[in-house]
Amino acid sequence: MDSSTIIYSLDLFGVAVFAVSGALAAGRKRMDIFGVVVLGIVTALGGGTIRDTLLDSGPVFWIHDPAYLLVAVAFSLLTFFTVRMLTAHRLALLVSDAFGLAIFTAIGTAIAFRTTDSFGVVVVMGVMTGTAGGMLRDVLSAEVPLVLQREIYATASLCGSCIYVALKHLGFSGIACMATAVAVTLAIRLAAIYWSLSLPVFDSEKNIPDKEEAE
Amino acid sequence: MDSSTIIYSLDLFGVAVFAVSGALAAGRKRMDIFGVVVLGIVTALGGGTIRDTLLDSGPVFWIHDPAYLLVAVAFSLLTFFTVRMLTAHRLALLVSDAFGLAIFTAIGTAIAFRTTDSFGVVVVMGVMTGTAGGMLRDVLSAEVPLVLQREIYATASLCGSCIYVALKHLGFSGIACMATAVAVTLAIRLAAIYWSLSLPVFDSEKNIPDKEEAE
Amino acid sequence: MDSSTIIYSLDLFGVAVFAVSGALAAGRKRMDIFGVVVLGIVTALGGGTIRDTLLDSGPVFWIHDPAYLLVAVAFSLLTFFTVRMLTAHRLALLVSDAFGLAIFTAIGTAIAFRTTDSFGVVVVMGVMTGTAGGMLRDVLSAEVPLVLQREIYATASLCGSCIYVALKHLGFSGIACMATAVAVTLAIRLAAIYWSLSLPVFDSEKNIPDKEEAE
Repeated sequence: MDSSTIIYSLDLFGVAVFAVSGALAAGRKRMDIFGVVVLGIVTALGGGTIRDTLLDSGPVFWIHDPAYLLVAVAFSLLTFFTVRMLTAHRLALLVSDAFGLAIFTAIGTAIAFRTTDSFGVVVVMGVMTGTAGGMLRDVLSAEVPLVLQREIYATASLCGSCIYVALKHLGFSGIACMATAVAVTLAIRLAAIYWSLSLPVFDSEKNIPDKEEAE
Repeated sequence: MDSSTIIYSLDLFGVAVFAVSGALAAGRKRMDIFGVVVLGIVTALGGGTIRDTLLDSGPVFWIHDPAYLLVAVAFSLLTFFTVRMLTAHRLALLVSDAFGLAIFTAIGTAIAFRTTDSFGVVVVMGVMTGTAGGMLRDVLSAEVPLVLQREIYATASLCGSCIYVALKHLGFSGIACMATAVAVTLAIRLAAIYWSLSLPVFDSEKNIPDKEEAE
Repeated sequence: MDSSTIIYSLDLFGVAVFAVSGALAAGRKRMDIFGVVVLGIVTALGGGTIRDTLLDSGPVFWIHDPAYLLVAVAFSLLTFFTVRMLTAHRLALLVSDAFGLAIFTAIGTAIAFRTTDSFGVVVVMGVMTGTAGGMLRDVLSAEVPLVLQREIYATASLCGSCIYVALKHLGFSGIACMATAVAVTLAIRLAAIYWSLSLPVFDSEKNIPDKEEAE
C-alpha cells in the first residue's frame, strides 16, 4: 500500500468519525433522520468544502469523488440506528475524533500549498479544514461553536499545521511533513483529553462596558 | 410558451414565495426593514447560491440575471408593507412554499447534472437547492433550522430529486424528469401538510452520556 | 502617495477595526484565545470573502495578499492582551467601526463592478462587503445579527453604495465615486450614532398567527 492510498484511507476514516460526531450532535437537538444526515455530512465535509471554496480550485472535493459523501451518509445513518450500542465507547469516540482532526489538518495544509506559498494562509487553511466542520455543526445547532470556547482542540490543529509548514520550509518530503503533522496534532489533542487541559478564557465584559448597549 | 419559459417563470415564483417566508421569519424576530430584505434574499436565493458556489460554475446565478434579486427584494418589501393582509392566507402560503420547494429541488437537480454524473452528489445538490435557503434563514434567526427537526419537508425534496435521477437514468427527457420531480415533491409535501405527518425524532441524550460534558 | 496606496491603507485600517470588533464579541462570549482570533478574522475578512466567493473571481483576496490576514490576527491578539486599556475609548471604537463600514462598502462596490454592470447586484455586493463580516461574527456567537435588528448601520452602507453607483453612471471617475461613497456612508453612520437613530421594527407576530406552530 503506497502513501497516497494510506492518506486516502485515513481521510475517509476522518470523514466517518466526524459524521458520527455530527449525527450525535443532531441527536442532542432532537432532529429527525434527515437532520441527522445533514449534520453528519456538514460536520464531515464542511471544513474541506469551505477550504476548496476559498481556494476556488474547481468543484469541491466530494463532487469529484462521491466516496466521501457515501461514507458520511453511511456513518450518519449507522449512528442513528445503533446509538444505544455506542454508550460504552465514549473514549473511543474522543480518540477517533482526535485522529480525524489530525488527518484533516495535515491534508488541508498540504492542499493549500498547491495554491499559495504564504505560510499564514496555509496554516489558516489547515486549521479550517480540521475545525470548520465542527463549527458549522454547532452553528446549525444554534450554539456557540465549542471549538471557540474550550479545551486544547484548535490549538492542537494549529500546532500540527505549523509543524507541517516548518518541516516543508526545511525541505522535508510531503509525506514526512504530513506524518509529523498528524503525530503532533494527535499527541497534543490526546494529552489535552488525558489531562483535561484548556486555554485561558477571555471575558471582555469585566473590562469594558457592554458594547451592544453602548453602540 | 416553451418549456424553458415555463421553468423560468416557476423559478421566479419559487423565489417570490421563499422571499415571503424569509420576510415573515424576520418579522418574528423583530428585525428592521433591512433585516427583512436580507432574510428575504437569503431565503429565496441561498440554496441556489450555495449550490453554484460548491459546483464552482462561475458567478452565482443571480449575478447573471438580476431578475432573481429584484423579485426577492420586491416580495420582501411587499410582505413588510402588507403583512396585515396576509393573515387569512396561511394555507395559500404553505401551498406556495411547497411549490417553491418542488421547483427549486427539480431545478437544482437538473443544474447539478451539468457538472457531475454522480447520483449521490446530484441528489445532495437538489435537496440543498430546495432547503438550504430556509436553513440559512433559521441560522440568521439564531434558531435550529426547522427543516432539520420536523415534518416531511426535506424528505419530499429528497424523493423528488431521487425520482428525477431515476427517470433520467432510464432515458427520459429533461422536461419529463423535471415535471415528475416537481409533481412528486409537491404531492408528498402537500400530503404531509394535510395529514400533519412527520419523521421519528432522534434523541441521543437518552442513550449516551452528554458528549459536551464528557469531552 | 497615489490613490491606490491610500485605498489599500484604508482597507487595512478597516480590517484592523473589524478585527477588534470581532475580538471584543468573542470576549463577551467567554471564548479562549483561539476563538478570539477566529472571530477577529471572520469579522474582518468575512464580508470580502463571501463577495469574492459569489463573484467566483479566483482565490479570495486574502490568499493573494497575506497582509490582510496578518493585520486581522495581530489586532485580534492586541485586543486580547490590551482590553483593559480600551475602556476609555468606546467612542473611538464606534467611529473607527463606522470608518471600516464606509471603506469596505466603497471597495466592495468597486470590485463588484469588475464582474457585473447590474446596479442591483453591485449594491448587494457593496453592502455585503460592509456588513456580512459582522453578521458572521454574530452567527458564530449564536445571536441574531445585530445589523438586522437595530440602528442605521446597514442603511448607511446601502446609501453609500447607491451613491457610488449613481456617480459612476453619471460618468465620474472611480476615485471620485469611492471618496463620495465613503463620505456618505460615514456621515450617515456618524449621524445615527450621534442622534441614536434607528429604523422602525417589523413585528409580524402581532399580525399573523405564528407560522412555526401553524405549519
